[in-house]
Amino acid sequence: MSDDAEAVSNIIDGRALAKKIEERVKERAGAFLKDVGSPPRLATVMVGEDPASQMYVRMKHRACERVGIASENANLPADAGMEGALDVIRALNSRSDVHGILVQLPLPPHLNERIVVGTVDPSKDVDGFHPMNMGNLLIGRERLVPCTPHGIIAALDEYGVELEGINAVIVGHSNVVGKPLAGMLLNRNATVTVCHVYTKDLKVHTLCADLLVVAAGVKGLVKADMVKDGVIVFDVGINTVGDKIYGDVEFDEVREKARLITPVPGGVGPMTIAMLLQHTLDAARAAEAIRRCHDGNK
Amino acid sequence: MSDDAEAVSNIIDGRALAKKIEERVKERAGAFLKDVGSPPRLATVMVGEDPASQMYVRMKHRACERVGIASENANLPADAGMEGALDVIRALNSRSDVHGILVQLPLPPHLNERIVVGTVDPSKDVDGFHPMNMGNLLIGRERLVPCTPHGIIAALDEYGVELEGINAVIVGHSNVVGKPLAGMLLNRNATVTVCHVYTKDLKVHTLCADLLVVAAGVKGLVKADMVKDGVIVFDVGINTVGDKIYGDVEFDEVREKARLITPVPGGVGPMTIAMLLQHTLDAARAAEAIRRCHDGNK
Repeated sequence: MSDDAEAVSNIIDGRALAKKIEERVKERAGAFLKDVGSPPRLATVMVGEDPASQMYVRMKHRACERVGIASENANLPADAGMEGALDVIRALNSRSDVHGILVQLPLPPHLNERIVVGTVDPSKDVDGFHPMNMGNLLIGRERLVPCTPHGIIAALDEYGVELEGINAVIVGHSNVVGKPLAGMLLNRNATVTVCHVYTKDLKVHTLCADLLVVAAGVKGLVKADMVKDGVIVFDVGINTVGDKIYGDVEFDEVREKARLITPVPGGVGPMTIAMLLQHTLDAARAAEAIRRCHDGNK
Repeated sequence: MSDDAEAVSNIIDGRALAKKIEERVKERAGAFLKDVGSPPRLATVMVGEDPASQMYVRMKHRACERVGIASENANLPADAGMEGALDVIRALNSRSDVHGILVQLPLPPHLNERIVVGTVDPSKDVDGFHPMNMGNLLIGRERLVPCTPHGIIAALDEYGVELEGINAVIVGHSNVVGKPLAGMLLNRNATVTVCHVYTKDLKVHTLCADLLVVAAGVKGLVKADMVKDGVIVFDVGINTVGDKIYGDVEFDEVREKARLITPVPGGVGPMTIAMLLQHTLDAARAAEAIRRCHDGNK
């Protein structure tokens, strides 16, 4: 094997992993359809016409289509009020054919994101952002959890990485990545350090990492001299310069030292969408199990 | 000042701090009574006759009495079933004169603790163990949070310790201390490391700590050579040997290097109870504010 081929093999191919997960979801969504008579269904809720949000929502619907999950989008006008938004969500909550509900964020500033997200039925909250789901995550009872951390955990599983006792360092303490991922790694008995913009000497911490997850939104933040040999690196950063996308990690130089590393793009991103599909399927199966249990009790 | 007096001054007097907080709660509970016509009220729920649980419940009721919070105890027989336990909690949920509900843990093994705790109205969950409260904690919206971590944060506040950017190391990743405290310290922009029984080299981590919280339940786990000069130490351990209680920290030797340190007993314990009282008052005030808001909307 040439040096080049060996070097290539330490790159985590997020697209290939996502495809593998999507194939599993597709198979199970097909079985669900056959069994129940209707497919799992995801409803997205979008307010306004933000082009980036429109693109993300389209990507999600296309992904649903690939795996046999039905989907629909409720697009509210940019000036929709709280009551209008909550009515739409309550209607989706009450529909038994809708298994997953995703509110595309960010919402326009006049809407209270916390209340809108908090109105989604936790059992349909495929984004995992509802406080109830976050709390269950923290106490080790993971049900629907945020998609990006779940994608990272799923990739680690696929690569057979033993998490118990490893030093995991997360850079970034956001509600969507850093904090829930910290909880999920603790649930798997990793030693977890969470750093962020207030951390005094980032390098002291990153140098200890067996697993390093960077979700800071700072292009080129992590360089080769900040990691040890054999580190596993997940780069969650998406930094756009012109029409190119960069991660938070200096990929070419860090890759030389890494045991495994995700590229940007094509790393964490595709896994995140695959998790959304898996969550929708999981929610559908859980709802169906509960329905049958109730029917059985009649 | 003699060397001795100086050395004494680095001990965090949990009893004195708790007394200070209790005095504040007492004043506000008095104002609540005057304003509303009835006092804040805590209801404890105990199943069976475990002597340790009985002692803890008695301590909590006595503490309520000290500060003008009314309290009552529902003591179910040891063989009470789930429906009986849930009925008691639902009845307390629906009583507008009960502001705080505390289920004394552990429950007998035949009862599902998760379901029992999850049945408490989150707005009356003064222990902060409900997933909804845990989730709100994780996403930075702290309402009712677990009492022990809250007591530690309150003590740090009282001593004017700046948390932003400090290296906080927690030993123990339980649902009642380690994980919620990690979230609360992240919310205050500390760099947080959580270690536990699976951590490979504990000393590597503890030596970095500006703030060290030990909640491992292992007598004498942390020794002087594991901490740096000027560390702040909270010892959550309660280890009984004969009729003496020891913490997880070798107090006498670690105290020599510490800027601040809690003793065991008389450190974290009294603060935990003070927080329970404060939470009951907070819950009563929040309930009253909501009641008035509803009345105003009529």
